[in-house]
Parts: sequence; structure tokens; C-alpha cells
Amino acid sequence: MTEDQKNDHVMVNEDKWEKQNEEEGFTLWFTGLSGSGKSAVADRVGLRLEEEYDHLVERLDGDIVRQHLTADLGFTKEDRNTNIKRVSFLAELLSRNGVSVLASFISPYRERRQKTREQVTNFIEVFVKCPIDVCADRDVKGLYEKARNGEIDNFTGISDPYEEPKNPEVTLETHKEEVEESVQKVIDYLDENGYL
Amino acid sequence: MTEDQKNDHVMVNEDKWEKQNEEEGFTLWFTGLSGSGKSAVADRVGLRLEEEYDHLVERLDGDIVRQHLTADLGFTKEDRNTNIKRVSFLAELLSRNGVSVLASFISPYRERRQKTREQVTNFIEVFVKCPIDVCADRDVKGLYEKARNGEIDNFTGISDPYEEPKNPEVTLETHKEEVEESVQKVIDYLDENGYL
Repeated sequence: MTEDQKNDHVMVNEDKWEKQNEEEGFTLWFTGLSGSGKSAVADRVGLRLEEEYDHLVERLDGDIVRQHLTADLGFTKEDRNTNIKRVSFLAELLSRNGVSVLASFISPYRERRQKTREQVTNFIEVFVKCPIDVCADRDVKGLYEKARNGEIDNFTGISDPYEEPKNPEVTLETHKEEVEESVQKVIDYLDENGYL
Repeated sequence: MTEDQKNDHVMVNEDKWEKQNEEEGFTLWFTGLSGSGKSAVADRVGLRLEEEYDHLVERLDGDIVRQHLTADLGFTKEDRNTNIKRVSFLAELLSRNGVSVLASFISPYRERRQKTREQVTNFIEVFVKCPIDVCADRDVKGLYEKARNGEIDNFTGISDPYEEPKNPEVTLETHKEEVEESVQKVIDYLDENGYL
């Protein structure tokens, strides 16, 4: 290489380095009923982002978060919103540091999701839309049946409301789509909007 | 460039890229009495890491965290430990994704700090050592006086214990050192241990 080429080379590398360091991540926020398929899709999207796109990926869901962050909370509206408030803080810290966050939470309340949208860098709402009967049919733990029998309180879709998103960035219809189709829809959205 | 050179070139870039992506961050955990100078030093270290070393930096302290994550908690031993448990989860998520975390918490209980050490990638304990009388003299809010008069309960060093670290990675003696000396001690530790 000539000296000029060397300089170009160094500059290109430095630009690249800065770009990587300054690059923001995003938060894919999967919302939908229990059994709608949020986690199945989120897991597969996460795997593809890691393997095909070398992203730094963190998965956040109820099981992970309740263990470490929100063990004190139940399922009343207030507790659900506090849960989402804490998760939103975490998602924002990760997103703004370049991590691709996959958050799957029923998160049934529109107003709380809106607050999260305002708080989190590159928030992308993915509505996992699936009729409640299909969700209940899939439910191996029998939670829907228990909720219908009154054995579980505050169950979204049965004894608690689910407020559908009005303008989600992506809508998945998991009762009509194969998992891989839903995954591809999310990847396509990311690609078309400059996140990949 | 020949084809071989091009290949080498691509490989070098890919290695560099992977290294950056896989690079771990660390958590500097500042522990010490109220008024010992934890936040003053942590703020300055954070600024230097950003400006001189282009690190991604996040500051976590009581004020930030209690607002978003732990508004429900008080200052009993149990609540303090729950507070630190949640912060530890957050610090680990950030550390393992390449962020340099500056956490300043009184965190008076040795057992809880030990758990954090086991949980967090590249945990570095910084003991901010300062005699309690010096801390109390610095205290513009008069908290020590109120605690001594019994107006505040569970005040570390007065009505609650502070368990000093036994083997901290760094010890700062803020009653003997200028802030910049303390900051430099931390930077030196990071440098000598391959974190910079």
C-alpha cells in the first residue's frame, strides 16, 4: 500500500470503529396474550440477530425479570405497570448502548406501553395478535381453564383487559403464520428501517 | 492489493470487529459511607473513560436507581439488599455487553457485595475509605446530625453497620487524597489489569 492508501485505510477503520461505538441498539417489544407466541418468535429473532447479523442480543421476559428484578410484584394493574416500568428502564440502558433487546411481556395496558415507547431508544412495538381461543388451546399449563374457573385472578383476556396496540410497527398473526414467517416479518421490518 | 492481501485485509477487519463485539465491559463498584466521596470519584472516572478511552459508560447510583427501579424500597437491611440485588442484575447485563459501569452504592453488607461479585462480569470493588467524622463534616444536608439525633433510622455508620471490604481491588482514602489522585488510582488499576 502507498502511504495515502494506508492513511485512507486507517481513516476508514476509525470511522467504522466510531460508528460501531456510537451505534444505537433497539428494543423489539412483543406484546400479546399469554400463549400468543411472543417468546417463541422473540427467541428465534434473537438467534438470527446473533448468528446472521452479529448483534449483541439480550432477551427479557417475565420469567427472567421476575426472578431478578420484580420478585415482589403480582398481577394487579398497578403491579403489572410497575413491572413494565422497571423493564423499560433496563431496556433503555441496553438499547442506548448498542444492544438489540427482545422484550416479551403481555404488557396489556396501552398507556404504560406508550410511556415505554417514549422512554426507550428505538422502540419497536410488535403486536402478537392471536384469538384468545387459539391461545387457550395451545396452553399446556391449563392456565386459561383455571382462569375461567376462577382459580386464577387477574388473568389477561379473561378477568383482566388486553388493550390492543393502535399503531404497532409490526403485527404478527401467529394463528395464520408459521413461526418462521412471523420471524421473517420482524427481520424484514428491521432491514427496511435501517436496523440491520 | 493482490487477492491474498485482500483476503488478509478482510480477515484482519473481521477479527477486529469480532473482538470489539465480544469485548466485555466491567463494573466498578464504589462502596463506602454516605459522604465518603463515591459519586464524586465515580463521575470523574466515568468522564475520563468516555473522553479519553471512548468507552460506553453508564453511571448507576441511588438517586438514579431508586427513581426507576426501586422506588418501593426503604433502608432496612432487607430492602438495601433487594436494592443491590436489582442493581447487580442490571450491572451484569450492561457489563457483559461491553459497557463500563460505574456503580456507587453504600452497599454496607459484605455478604450481598460478595453475591454481586459472583454475579457480575469483571466486578471491581473500589472501597472508598473515609473516617465517619470527615464524612459527617462534609455532609451539607445534615443527615449525620439527624441520624445522631434519632431523626433518621437505619443510617449506615450511626444506627446501621458498615462492613468494610476485606479484599477490595482498589482502596481510596478520600480524606488524604485529592479527587484527581483517587480518580487516577482507579484508572491505573484498570490500565494495569487490561481493561483500557
